[in-house]
Amino acid sequence: MQLFTEMTKEELCAQAAKARDIYDAYLRQGISINMARGRPAAPQLDLSDPLMNLTKADTGFKAEDGSDVRNYGGLCGIPEARRLFGEIFGVPADNVIVCGSSSLNLMYDYISQCCSHGALGSSPWSKTEAPKFVAVVPGYDRHFAIAEHFGLEMISVPMTPDGPDMDLLEEVVKDPSVKGMFCVPKYSNPDGITYSENTVRRLAAMQTGAADFRVIWDEAYVVHDLYEEGDELANVFEIAKEYGTEDRFVAFASTSKITFAGAGVAAIAASDANFSDIKARMTVQIISYDKLNQLRHCKLYPSLTEIRAQMKKHAAILRPKFEAVLNVLHAELDGCGIASFNSPRGGYFISLDVNVGSAKYVGELCKACGLTLTGVGATYPYGKDPADANIRIAPSCPSVEELDTAARILAAAVKLAACKELGADVG
Amino acid sequence: MQLFTEMTKEELCAQAAKARDIYDAYLRQGISINMARGRPAAPQLDLSDPLMNLTKADTGFKAEDGSDVRNYGGLCGIPEARRLFGEIFGVPADNVIVCGSSSLNLMYDYISQCCSHGALGSSPWSKTEAPKFVAVVPGYDRHFAIAEHFGLEMISVPMTPDGPDMDLLEEVVKDPSVKGMFCVPKYSNPDGITYSENTVRRLAAMQTGAADFRVIWDEAYVVHDLYEEGDELANVFEIAKEYGTEDRFVAFASTSKITFAGAGVAAIAASDANFSDIKARMTVQIISYDKLNQLRHCKLYPSLTEIRAQMKKHAAILRPKFEAVLNVLHAELDGCGIASFNSPRGGYFISLDVNVGSAKYVGELCKACGLTLTGVGATYPYGKDPADANIRIAPSCPSVEELDTAARILAAAVKLAACKELGADVG
Repeated sequence: MQLFTEMTKEELCAQAAKARDIYDAYLRQGISINMARGRPAAPQLDLSDPLMNLTKADTGFKAEDGSDVRNYGGLCGIPEARRLFGEIFGVPADNVIVCGSSSLNLMYDYISQCCSHGALGSSPWSKTEAPKFVAVVPGYDRHFAIAEHFGLEMISVPMTPDGPDMDLLEEVVKDPSVKGMFCVPKYSNPDGITYSENTVRRLAAMQTGAADFRVIWDEAYVVHDLYEEGDELANVFEIAKEYGTEDRFVAFASTSKITFAGAGVAAIAASDANFSDIKARMTVQIISYDKLNQLRHCKLYPSLTEIRAQMKKHAAILRPKFEAVLNVLHAELDGCGIASFNSPRGGYFISLDVNVGSAKYVGELCKACGLTLTGVGATYPYGKDPADANIRIAPSCPSVEELDTAARILAAAVKLAACKELGADVG
Repeated sequence: MQLFTEMTKEELCAQAAKARDIYDAYLRQGISINMARGRPAAPQLDLSDPLMNLTKADTGFKAEDGSDVRNYGGLCGIPEARRLFGEIFGVPADNVIVCGSSSLNLMYDYISQCCSHGALGSSPWSKTEAPKFVAVVPGYDRHFAIAEHFGLEMISVPMTPDGPDMDLLEEVVKDPSVKGMFCVPKYSNPDGITYSENTVRRLAAMQTGAADFRVIWDEAYVVHDLYEEGDELANVFEIAKEYGTEDRFVAFASTSKITFAGAGVAAIAASDANFSDIKARMTVQIISYDKLNQLRHCKLYPSLTEIRAQMKKHAAILRPKFEAVLNVLHAELDGCGIASFNSPRGGYFISLDVNVGSAKYVGELCKACGLTLTGVGATYPYGKDPADANIRIAPSCPSVEELDTAARILAAAVKLAACKELGADVG
């Protein structure tokens, strides 16, 4: 395919007409496809239906420490669940707290705690004049929403193929009013990038103006490989120990995309000091989390081995979906010079950047055609993408056939937007 | 029994010797009984084991609105769960949010929200110079812990047989820095008192200095009758509407003492305005709560009728336990003038006040004998009972035989403490 930017007006008009024909054909079909959110599809949820088979005969509803999981108690979670998440995080079970179903809620709670009470005895962040938070962009809208909710002004630092732009970040964090950042270090949302070991090392080593700087290390996709050979993420706690900055990192994960999105188990990994700080708050907040659900999970997935086997089944469902989208995007957009996109080896998203044209306009065209994307702009703080370029594609929920259709509509819309930008009549 | 205060020294010494004999006999037996917390006993938990029978064949894991409860979505809970809690609270389902397993967590979150963001657009409570909260005493230590955690200075208002001392409360709440209060309006913790309709009315009608005054209406024991004829609690939302103060009350309940203490379902009932305010925060906090557990509950307990039937089974287990304690206390302490206690018709506690002697000393004697009570003082803010009088008895967990023993040890300890106070040698 020829570069759109080097086409004559006539060539552009021909491209626009072709794209318009494809688009209009789908428009007449009355499509309805939703690629807005990273929701698992029903066949993925079905994989974990055996979770429901937990019986009293099998377990007496007792955890391995003999405690009755139906009753109050065990604030930090049952031992077997702490051990399982310890394996997932790569930390000792003693540094893990296993909680309810939502890791987002745990991150919200931790930020809330830092704002109201500070971290490890520091001054509450809410007492800081104009506290700030780094937003790695593009990023996860729900992270940004938490920072916004607590009045943490966001400073954007762009992603690179190795993780956040560390040269820029190292400058930004010198400001003592910059209190922390969210990271999705493996298969980042939406880029699907895994931070390099060098990036992890620089995050651990960097000099922060704020002594209570916190990295919310959201391991949302920590075991979520699409291919046999997955990306490797360096162990942030081990590296941080070399620099004495293990208190800088608090890690979160859940089984939302391992078992049931709405009824899984979430957990925290933290240094000894942060663990005590978080536990002290939780002692006030709750008597204990749902240990029965923890036990269900541990019976079916007692160790990382069973988790990895489960993730291969997810991959078998998800991989053809990602490939359905990528195949069309490659066929339709490669060489046009109007868009770029990643080919992630895990996670839940494909990130598409419109280099020529407007992402908002692409989103409008798709919507008018019955294709719902993640709200354009959502991958940037305050929902405002300054370049109006990024589009997040969530291929998990629709069928392969729907995704083929969706990708063709999207590619046509990207071409129409580019032709319009370059001055062609797009009809 | 003769009043201890009217006994001669010799009579007192004889009483002390008798109590000491009883106490020493148990001491030699090497008792270990825990009456510290309101934990359901295993036979109560067994009542809800059928919750675990939810199958895909029965439900397709679909809520009545067709949503897949295994997946994300449905922030406010599944419709049937909202309807069920609507019945329990006596409010429309539209005013109910059904959440995770812990109502304590929901109260914590709401107070946290008021402190960081205010209520319905008011100034954040944390911005108030020395914000205060009313503590109805004796009361629930976990409520007090939340207020203390958020720096809300507690002002004690004593309970009466009709609820909080309203004459005093009406004065206290005139101070605009007094931001709210916790109430357990039915079968209060620990007194087992149900607020009279007049008390509920005065709470709704009272003039508060703070426009954003909030009553945390903790309906922890709303259906937890011990007898066929239970106490009746007036509907606070209906009454508040008469005074235009429905935004003053936010109600909380859970199935922790209906189904599984550690794996139940909790909910909030709130006015339209508070509902919107809470939902807006939750939108940032979590994608959705565990709807699978909500569905389990609704299948087994679709309406208040099935809940009430379940509570009769709980009562059949709990009533003999309460009566075992009360029978001994009556037999041993009536007419002595050294202690008073309530005979609750529901809830989880018996509240014992030592009129002569020291509750702390009683607690120490019991502990030395292997009987663990709720930490003496815990029923007052900051763990300090100014009169050193109140002891909370939680009879749900031990067996009837253990409770008979526990009550005899307790009665002996109360007598020993009184004799000591009155100058007799207690050995």
